[in-house]
Amino acid sequence: MSLNRISDEMATVNSGVSEKVTLALFGVGRIGSVHLKSIARHLRIHLKYLVEEAVDIAKKALNDVGLEHVSIVNFKGVSQVLEDKSVQGVVVCTPTSTHQKVVTQALRAGKAVFCEKPVAHNSEAADECYKVAEECKLPLLCAFHKRFDPTFGPIIKRSRDGEIGQIRYIKTTLRDTMDPSFPGLSTLGGCFLDLALHDVDLACACIGEFPTTVSGDGHAFAKDIEKNKDFDQAIANLKFPSGALATIEMSRFCNYGYDQRLEVFGIEGMLSGSNVHDNHVVAFNSSGTSQPKLQASFPERYLESYYNEMDHFVKVIQGKEKLCISRIDAVAAIKIVEACEKAAKTKTIIDLTW
Amino acid sequence: MSLNRISDEMATVNSGVSEKVTLALFGVGRIGSVHLKSIARHLRIHLKYLVEEAVDIAKKALNDVGLEHVSIVNFKGVSQVLEDKSVQGVVVCTPTSTHQKVVTQALRAGKAVFCEKPVAHNSEAADECYKVAEECKLPLLCAFHKRFDPTFGPIIKRSRDGEIGQIRYIKTTLRDTMDPSFPGLSTLGGCFLDLALHDVDLACACIGEFPTTVSGDGHAFAKDIEKNKDFDQAIANLKFPSGALATIEMSRFCNYGYDQRLEVFGIEGMLSGSNVHDNHVVAFNSSGTSQPKLQASFPERYLESYYNEMDHFVKVIQGKEKLCISRIDAVAAIKIVEACEKAAKTKTIIDLTW
Amino acid sequence: MSLNRISDEMATVNSGVSEKVTLALFGVGRIGSVHLKSIARHLRIHLKYLVEEAVDIAKKALNDVGLEHVSIVNFKGVSQVLEDKSVQGVVVCTPTSTHQKVVTQALRAGKAVFCEKPVAHNSEAADECYKVAEECKLPLLCAFHKRFDPTFGPIIKRSRDGEIGQIRYIKTTLRDTMDPSFPGLSTLGGCFLDLALHDVDLACACIGEFPTTVSGDGHAFAKDIEKNKDFDQAIANLKFPSGALATIEMSRFCNYGYDQRLEVFGIEGMLSGSNVHDNHVVAFNSSGTSQPKLQASFPERYLESYYNEMDHFVKVIQGKEKLCISRIDAVAAIKIVEACEKAAKTKTIIDLTW
Amino acid sequence: MSLNRISDEMATVNSGVSEKVTLALFGVGRIGSVHLKSIARHLRIHLKYLVEEAVDIAKKALNDVGLEHVSIVNFKGVSQVLEDKSVQGVVVCTPTSTHQKVVTQALRAGKAVFCEKPVAHNSEAADECYKVAEECKLPLLCAFHKRFDPTFGPIIKRSRDGEIGQIRYIKTTLRDTMDPSFPGLSTLGGCFLDLALHDVDLACACIGEFPTTVSGDGHAFAKDIEKNKDFDQAIANLKFPSGALATIEMSRFCNYGYDQRLEVFGIEGMLSGSNVHDNHVVAFNSSGTSQPKLQASFPERYLESYYNEMDHFVKVIQGKEKLCISRIDAVAAIKIVEACEKAAKTKTIIDLTW
Repeated sequence: MSLNRISDEMATVNSGVSEKVTLALFGVGRIGSVHLKSIARHLRIHLKYLVEEAVDIAKKALNDVGLEHVSIVNFKGVSQVLEDKSVQGVVVCTPTSTHQKVVTQALRAGKAVFCEKPVAHNSEAADECYKVAEECKLPLLCAFHKRFDPTFGPIIKRSRDGEIGQIRYIKTTLRDTMDPSFPGLSTLGGCFLDLALHDVDLACACIGEFPTTVSGDGHAFAKDIEKNKDFDQAIANLKFPSGALATIEMSRFCNYGYDQRLEVFGIEGMLSGSNVHDNHVVAFNSSGTSQPKLQASFPERYLESYYNEMDHFVKVIQGKEKLCISRIDAVAAIKIVEACEKAAKTKTIIDLTW
Repeated sequence: MSLNRISDEMATVNSGVSEKVTLALFGVGRIGSVHLKSIARHLRIHLKYLVEEAVDIAKKALNDVGLEHVSIVNFKGVSQVLEDKSVQGVVVCTPTSTHQKVVTQALRAGKAVFCEKPVAHNSEAADECYKVAEECKLPLLCAFHKRFDPTFGPIIKRSRDGEIGQIRYIKTTLRDTMDPSFPGLSTLGGCFLDLALHDVDLACACIGEFPTTVSGDGHAFAKDIEKNKDFDQAIANLKFPSGALATIEMSRFCNYGYDQRLEVFGIEGMLSGSNVHDNHVVAFNSSGTSQPKLQASFPERYLESYYNEMDHFVKVIQGKEKLCISRIDAVAAIKIVEACEKAAKTKTIIDLTW
Repeated sequence: MSLNRISDEMATVNSGVSEKVTLALFGVGRIGSVHLKSIARHLRIHLKYLVEEAVDIAKKALNDVGLEHVSIVNFKGVSQVLEDKSVQGVVVCTPTSTHQKVVTQALRAGKAVFCEKPVAHNSEAADECYKVAEECKLPLLCAFHKRFDPTFGPIIKRSRDGEIGQIRYIKTTLRDTMDPSFPGLSTLGGCFLDLALHDVDLACACIGEFPTTVSGDGHAFAKDIEKNKDFDQAIANLKFPSGALATIEMSRFCNYGYDQRLEVFGIEGMLSGSNVHDNHVVAFNSSGTSQPKLQASFPERYLESYYNEMDHFVKVIQGKEKLCISRIDAVAAIKIVEACEKAAKTKTIIDLTW
Repeated sequence: MSLNRISDEMATVNSGVSEKVTLALFGVGRIGSVHLKSIARHLRIHLKYLVEEAVDIAKKALNDVGLEHVSIVNFKGVSQVLEDKSVQGVVVCTPTSTHQKVVTQALRAGKAVFCEKPVAHNSEAADECYKVAEECKLPLLCAFHKRFDPTFGPIIKRSRDGEIGQIRYIKTTLRDTMDPSFPGLSTLGGCFLDLALHDVDLACACIGEFPTTVSGDGHAFAKDIEKNKDFDQAIANLKFPSGALATIEMSRFCNYGYDQRLEVFGIEGMLSGSNVHDNHVVAFNSSGTSQPKLQASFPERYLESYYNEMDHFVKVIQGKEKLCISRIDAVAAIKIVEACEKAAKTKTIIDLTW
């Protein structure tokens, strides 16, 4: 058998390429470059366009992942991308303020949409996006990556499956590893929307309810954050219809690594998601026993989660999986976080209706 | 800026593609498919050929990793592959008995070689391979993937850097998750060469010496292995010139997952590489506290290690890194394992000279 | 040297017996019998009286710890105990409602007093007790045993010593192992005073401040507790003058053992007190990895803590240590807990002044 | 009810004192003082005599545990102790060289005997001791305290109960925390008999067999130990009739604490006894995650084990428990260790018959 003949045979096999899903990525900033890495690693994605104003950054990002052949388009060229029939889905990683516009444009152009959280800048706008998605009969995936985490995902499932009985209390920890001397502190978005959103979703997903009472509190230890009237350390308390309570604790700063925990306590037991260290070396010496630091930040800690959610998006487009995060999930999380922030800032306890 | 202009600009950037290293993979059996996955994930590898007699298996393997366009070549077509000047390196995953032939052919054709361990069926043949590599002034990488493990790698480095002082004892555990009812038990290669080789290399790498006395013992609990005059549970004991001792413990079977540990004990402390579980869920209930199983087998447990060693091979070809496993390392490990097996089978204590 | 001569010599040594501290124990119910065990184990305590109405229970309790020779006195005989000049200290384990009376009687009779928490049924009464102690210039030890725990004690010290810098958040978990079917549920005291008191004290001790704002929430999952208008699952939130926050989480029920945790998070790191399992066996099998349950309840979990606080009491009497829990500590904890309970029951946020 | 009446009633109860077991302790050196502490803590032991030449040390030891009233007797006074009918048992903690004499004297005087390991200086002498015990129909307890450990005890039981199926491999670690600069190094007894004896017993107890082949190896890193022709780091390898293997690893020195582990691997799983740390504080900071050191040495690590074995002795005397360590257990362990040491020193593999 000659080499040529084998290559001919490959032609048939290569038709398998048609199984690849063609996507366009909008925005390659901090989170966009994380999703770009998932796209590059995914064996069934054909990335056709990267929409990004900053061409140099776009080139570097593509080069970093070996996707130098992908077309870079600026925002003026967006219509070309949306009109390209071969593009099946759009991954939205532009600034939050633009989400609603980009998401609805893409949906109306007939594309499935993966949108970095939050789907829009407030709960009403997010709900509007989903309304459009329903009208267009297209999937809109709100990127709650923690749901796809190999540790947190099973905790949600096992909690919902009743393994620990009636849930009594949920506790989440999310401590970011920002540096307190970071000059951009004053430009950060609100701490609750930025940090608590994922964990509020996690808590609701574990219990399968939405809270009817919320409160919150916080403090700005960093001057720049205080000036911004925001918090860098805060808690949100949720009370669910069943009587279960939840505490979401968040911090902008954490010097020992990216601390991400979830604990669900029920009458029949507890499910706990512990942290991930850099490796599995344990060192013993005359000072004690030590393990490496926790993984540094979200790109490392949630590498698999980001990959899994992109894979879910691909499979939803392929019709192999059903969208696992619903309209109400995505909208409620924003509404809850908004209420928690208001409660913290006004020192009140707020009731929510659903 | 039009889409076209951007595409034009990409042309320059796309020259970055030339940085990719072009490889051919020989053999896509159990371990070959693992290395194929690393190749598919690697952003700087261009796989041009897959040399494999079993075309169907080859097609499926390529399809599984989204590399349907790679040319499949059977062994008659090998010369074409080796004559292709664009191929810079060859990854050898054919049966051990063919290693020497394939490795030397590839080297003589001017290719860098990555060879699945052992480099040859015995230590003399392995040494011959390296002789050829030296003559050809080409890198020959013996794939001791455990050296590239995120846990074991740092233990080697920290041991050699003196963190725990004079090394006194090294202990390794390698328990494979084969099923005792697996029908192919009687066809397995020798337990020592198959299992202990990596760990003997690990032990020598940690201490930077080769043992001068070895012994071993073992037992066949499984009938099929007993018939084969092999062991399914065994130990190898090494004594190093410095007086340090090492015990390598190996098992074909392990029902709780792929148990892979390394412990280095020195006068100033201990470095220990603990096992990796499937995820980080800890469940508490009235029966106790439980964690998931250990990862199932080598493709999961050493996913990053395999990737890292392939990455090392790429960087060696690119001239960015120096080959980190030497001729003596690769040859000595085989020689030591051969002696341990002989010692176990003859109930003797064997001295080695270097 | 004859046996007699040695015995004579012992006479001198035996004068060391005079170093023992003579105590009376009041009450040998659930917690009294725990303290009795510490007394029996302590090598420098001479227990002279056990004051208890239930003579049979008293006899059995003494017999259980090999102290059958101790005199049992009922409450009519209390004056004899208090008039006995040889009694240096009194350990008060009677019902909370009687604390104030017994504590002040004992102090006025010139005895040092160890009082099971709370020192009195409310913060004003507790403060009155301390006023008497100051008038009498006698030590009054509020038995916050968690301060003496081998795990929590060092966390308090290291937090106060600045190891983790400015404290940002404190989290405590206290889940009791009561059975939801326990018939006496409706007779239990308030969940906040009963459970949260120790942890409120822990939090304040770690940060060295008292909170200026508190809130709380809770739910009664058990019918009998709901009837009693109490909670079986609750949280208390504290905000300290420095801006630090704390969450105290408590449950009456926990099926996986006595869950007792403390976590202090500061800008320079985190100190975490993990749970204690029954033993250190780890079992691996085809279902996963398992450890034994957490220790069952307070007598096991705090065995050493109880012993250490009794030892502290002895050393305070001997003048070897200074009382380590102050009037304000003991009174503030009650005041805070009262406010948290009120906040939880009235759904308000309460400010406290100091 | 008057105080007197209660005291009268106590008379009846106090008859419970007669349930105490009366013991004499022989020797209060390093291990004797450990057993003295168990005796002092035990609620059902009446220690009547302490036989010790060094009176000052004896006085101090008794004073340390609040037992100043116990009679100190020197060796000339031993006959008085042995003739005292009230003494039911003797605890032998004299130097190993005197064990046989003291044990047999005590047995012939009608006393139950608790003997610190080894029961005699060699296996034949140990067997002689047991022969006397059988003649006298009295219990002779060889103090293998690790059998009574809350961690290792359940591992033995669960292994023997078949939880992990056919045992394949047993691994023990025992690293003592002696200081390499300790001046008395050259006077230490042989490393195998001193250290390995307990672990050889553990291994045999877990599997319920005695090894038929043994080997060993070792090295003296410390000059003073080399002069003494002993080892400070060694291994013993055991092969059992069932084919199971065991490795006992021992070190005189360990700078990170008293490392004591047991691992039993079977076809159905693994039971592992992990180390005990000083407390349960976990500290996280920018350098990593750290836990305290392992407990410092045997008095801390085996506090409960020593207590439990003394309690077993008491209950054997009281007829409540049956002696759980047999003649063959105690004698075999010495015989095995002797063979391992010989194998290590002669570089041979030795077969044992039973």
